[in-house]
Order: sequence, then C-alpha cells, then structure tokens
Amino acid sequence: MVRKKVRIGGLVIGPGEPVRVQSMTSTHTEDIKGTVNQIRELEKAGCEIVRVAVPDFESAEAIREIKKQINIPLVADIHFDYRLAMRAVEAGADKIRINPGNIGSDWKVREVVKACKEKDIPIRVGANSGSLKKELRRKMPVEDALVESVREEVKILEDMGFDNIVISIKASDVGVFIRANQKAHREFQYPFHIGVTEAGPVPQGIVKSSIGIGFLLMNGIGDTIRVSLTADPVEEIEVAYDILASTGIRKVYPEIISCPTCGRMEIDLLKLIEKVKPLWEGLKLPLKIAVMGCAVNGPGEAREADIGIAGGRGYGLIFRKGKIIKSVPEVDLYNEFKRELQKLIREVENAHEGGKGEG
Amino acid sequence: MVRKKVRIGGLVIGPGEPVRVQSMTSTHTEDIKGTVNQIRELEKAGCEIVRVAVPDFESAEAIREIKKQINIPLVADIHFDYRLAMRAVEAGADKIRINPGNIGSDWKVREVVKACKEKDIPIRVGANSGSLKKELRRKMPVEDALVESVREEVKILEDMGFDNIVISIKASDVGVFIRANQKAHREFQYPFHIGVTEAGPVPQGIVKSSIGIGFLLMNGIGDTIRVSLTADPVEEIEVAYDILASTGIRKVYPEIISCPTCGRMEIDLLKLIEKVKPLWEGLKLPLKIAVMGCAVNGPGEAREADIGIAGGRGYGLIFRKGKIIKSVPEVDLYNEFKRELQKLIREVENAHEGGKGEG
Repeated sequence: MVRKKVRIGGLVIGPGEPVRVQSMTSTHTEDIKGTVNQIRELEKAGCEIVRVAVPDFESAEAIREIKKQINIPLVADIHFDYRLAMRAVEAGADKIRINPGNIGSDWKVREVVKACKEKDIPIRVGANSGSLKKELRRKMPVEDALVESVREEVKILEDMGFDNIVISIKASDVGVFIRANQKAHREFQYPFHIGVTEAGPVPQGIVKSSIGIGFLLMNGIGDTIRVSLTADPVEEIEVAYDILASTGIRKVYPEIISCPTCGRMEIDLLKLIEKVKPLWEGLKLPLKIAVMGCAVNGPGEAREADIGIAGGRGYGLIFRKGKIIKSVPEVDLYNEFKRELQKLIREVENAHEGGKGEG
Repeated sequence: MVRKKVRIGGLVIGPGEPVRVQSMTSTHTEDIKGTVNQIRELEKAGCEIVRVAVPDFESAEAIREIKKQINIPLVADIHFDYRLAMRAVEAGADKIRINPGNIGSDWKVREVVKACKEKDIPIRVGANSGSLKKELRRKMPVEDALVESVREEVKILEDMGFDNIVISIKASDVGVFIRANQKAHREFQYPFHIGVTEAGPVPQGIVKSSIGIGFLLMNGIGDTIRVSLTADPVEEIEVAYDILASTGIRKVYPEIISCPTCGRMEIDLLKLIEKVKPLWEGLKLPLKIAVMGCAVNGPGEAREADIGIAGGRGYGLIFRKGKIIKSVPEVDLYNEFKRELQKLIREVENAHEGGKGEG
C-alpha cells in the first residue's frame, strides 16, 4: 500500500515526515485575544498544529483574525452543524475536523467536501467511541464499529473524488483504541491522527495516552499525535514530546535521566533538578542530561547521558558519557555544571552546522 | 515452557496470579520510624511489596524491627557487599535483590544463595543497563548484553540447585528495555519484575514507565511492576495502578473518564474533578466514573462510564452507562451525585457479595 501525504498549512504529514505534535485550545474561540495568547504559549512549548472549537458562527468568524496572529496551521473543530464548517473554511482554516457521525445527512457532508476541495484543505474524519451511530454499536464490537464508521465516512469523500483526508479513531479505552487503529491502518492509506480521548486528569491521562499512543507509534502507526489531558494544554505538548522521545520516533528536546528517590540518596534530588532544569529550558537539542542522587552509582548508571551531574556528601561530580570530567565542592556544582553544559551545547551546535537541529 | 511461581512473604507471583505493585522507600532504612511511616503510607496507597535500600549494616539490622510494624512483604536491596545480603536475610527480609554484576566474585554470590536457600526466600537477579560488565557491553548490543548478564547470574543460582528466582532487566532507554525483556522472557521461566529505571521526573518518568511497562504487559510479560519516578514513592503506586487498569491487566481502583479542556466547555472541569474526587478516595472498586465538561456531549461520549456527571449553563446531569438519570440545578449537583454514587457503590458491593472486590 502506498501511503499518502497531506498538507496542513505549511506542514506536510505522512510517510517520511516527522510525526507532528498538536493540541487544542481550551479558550472560547470567539475570544480572539485569549485564544491567540494560548496558541502562542502552545507554539512556544513546541505545538506544531493547533485545533480550535467552533461551536458557533462567532467562533468560525474569529478564525480569520486568529490566523493573522499565529504561526502554526489551524484546524477548525466542528460538531453537528455543517454550516459552521463552511464558515470556518471561508475564514481560512487550514484543515477541518468533522465527525460525520454527528454532522447528519450525507448531503451536508458533501457541501463541506466541496468547500474544502475548492480551497485545497484536508478534512480529518473519524470516529469516537463515544459518538458512534447506534446501529453500528449494536451490530459489532466497538473496535469494528469504529473502523466501519470510518469506512463509511471515507467512502463519502472518495466518491466525491476527494482524497485529502486524515483519519482518526478515538476511544477512551486503550485496548479498543489500539485494536481499532491497527485494523484501520491496514485498510486506509491516509495519514493517521492518533490520540486517546477522555483520558482523564493527570497522572491517569498521561498513563493512558503514553500507553496507547506509544504502542501505536512503536508499531509504525501515527503521523500526528494529540495528547488529551484534563489539564493545561501546554502540558499536553510536553507529554507528547516525551512520548515521541521515549519511543525513539522523534527526539527534539533534552531528555532527563534521573534516579528514583531511594534510601541511598545523598542529596535532595528533586531540589537539584528544579534548580538545573532552567539551564536547558527552550533548548531544541535532543541531549540526554543526567541528574543523579548519589556520586557512587550516578556516573555509571547514567553512562548513556551526554552530560550529567551527581551530588553527595559535600562534593559533586560532572560527567560525560559515564566519564567523570570534574569533581567539585557542592557549592560550586551549579556554576561548574552550567559552564560544562554550555560548552557541550556549543560543541553539538557547531557539529550540527549552526544548531538548527531538527525543529 | 512451564512458568514458575515464586512466593514473597504472604504473596505469590507468577502465572495466574495478579500482577503485583511494588515500590521502594526513599528514607534512610536505618531510620526505622521514618521508614515504617513511609511504608504505611505506601500500603495505604495500595503498595503490595516494598523494597528498602541496604547500604550498611545498620540498615540491614533495621529490617528486623521494620518487619514487625508493617503488613506487606519486604525486599532488601543490596549493592556491592554480599555481607549486607547475609545480614538482611538473617534480619527477616522476604526477598533479596542483588545485582550480581556488582556483588563481585562468584563465591560471594554463592554465600548469599546458601543463606536464602536455608530461609526459603527468593532472590531477584538481573541486569541494569547502567551497571553491565564492561566486557559484555563491548561485545554486543546493550539488549543482548543485558540478557547475557542475566543468563550468567541465573546459571550460578541454578548450578547451586536454586530456582527461587525473580528476573529483572532494567534500562532507562524504553526500546532497549522492551527488547531485552522480550528476549529474556522467551528464555527464562521465572517470574519477571519489570520497570524502567532512571525514568526521570514527572511527567517524563510517567511517560517512559507507561510506554515500557504497558507495552510488555500487553505482550504478556510482567508478574510484578515497579514504576520508578524521581518523585514521592506514593505517586509511583498511583501510576502503577493506572498502568494496570489502562492495559486491562488488573482493575482495582476507580478510573476517571474526563474530557480534555476545550472551548466547548461550560463548566470549570478541573475544579469539579477536584471537588468530586474525594468521594471515591480509597474505594477499592474498579468503577468507571465520568466527569464531563459539557452537558450536550458528556453523557454520550462517556457512555461506557458506570456513573457520570456533566455540568454546564446552570444545570447538571447525572448519568449511568450513557442514560441520563437526573437533571438538577448546578447548586444541587454535588450532593445529588454523591447520593447516586453511594447508591451505585452499594449495588455493586452487594452484587460482589460483601464488596471485597479483588484486593
């Protein structure tokens, strides 16, 4: 099967492209200032595609102004009313998300398709375990109903000669989510947007998203990901990049290696982490940085770290790839580590010809 | 392959047994009072096996007194010095964790084995990507070196006729962790203790543990799990149970279904969750409880919830399995929900003959 690519504003998702991180605003979209502010915060955190809710015409209309003030592609999220989709397309949305299962009659979907075709923007279709048609839910297991639902929606679009499609299948049950996406991925050649829905508050929401999205990514499924948390959307971005890094799919930001707090600890590790973390805030380099609680095991156990720090009993160690490069009194540890980290960053950036990294 | 079971104090782990949740104290073990207090907190959170660090003889000796004051099996964690292991066994540890890679000569390991055999307690052996022998690390990929390291250690024990073994392979790289455990699981019939090590602070640590442990559990690997976070150990327990529930392996506590915060939200969802969460604190029943931000989609999208609440625009809905059972003014929502939840809990407990649940 030849897998397709899809363009969303200035980005392309699909085979060979980086898996893109997206989120959704929690503001009321018609509040242009609040929405733009949140999107800018999300951009700063690394969000690459943003979705806004469009529950009314004011929100659809607001897209026009919001688009002028942000730098990442914007997706309009439509429920129920196809006219809102039409208005959002007119206002400049880079992609439309509709759940045709709740848009109503096919002819309404057709109207939306026509508008998107004219503007050459993609449509994300899909199914959500919470809004499946009753007939489907009764007939078969949920995961099959989800795939069948997608099949029906895709057919409507394809029958109109429209193939600028992104697929998503959402469920709050991780097992259902995984199995349905695996089945659909074998059948459809379009890019997949993946995310566990109604995952819940932290930490449960992080756990469910990590297991579900992580499992699919490691099986080669997923072109853009959304972590849904009942929390500040900026936290969704951090978790999304952690999932990408942990699965080895895409490494953009530094990763921290640090030991669990144990009875062998010789230093207040949580405090130390809080203190040094700002040193690499906003840094777009996939360094492995270790912050370890004991000087004896620290450097060895964090051997894979590009740079690391271990404290204990009045002195501290700074190491690179397991090799101790400095042993200093604890009072000097922070400043020495800062210097060594900056040195390492310069080296890596020079090696990468100017430090543009991946992002 | 017939997989073995192993007894740890009053618990058995292995095929057909529940996957047990464990953690490790962060206190200094020789501080008996502090350690007992933390273990009791961990017990309250659902911890079923606890490990303590034994870096010196005082800590080994403290086990005797700690054991009298706690209700769950205790594992002594030994590095470097085999005499500490001997002393911990004498003091009544229910299991010993040694990493023979850093205990030194084989004869020392043999001494420990002899002591455990006499007391009939298991030994957890294993390898950690951070403390592999240099020769092994140079010869082969890390995941193979981890398996080879386990192979050597197991052989020493088996050659002495000792098969009361738990295996663990830890790594901070999720991919290495998964592949090494998969390989080892095909080869060894002993119970597996699984956990990602040096996973880091929250949220990254939660992400890495969820992906790694979740992936293995869904592939049938894992008899006891440890989530390692650079955080309060009590948080490790919550995350561990979230992983077990999300993978469908073992459901003990309520699961929350709640929507991400979006522009369609009609209520302060985070606040509502904080308010209702204490209603089921400590409840050992795997109910699905939904807390949704909008009354229009809420009940439908959280159809699978045993009970749910959705707020918005001055009134609130209470529903069961997607069916609205009550619509009340927002001011009465909390009390009405409390009443309905208690009713449901009574019903479920009666159906389970006295509500002992799984735990």
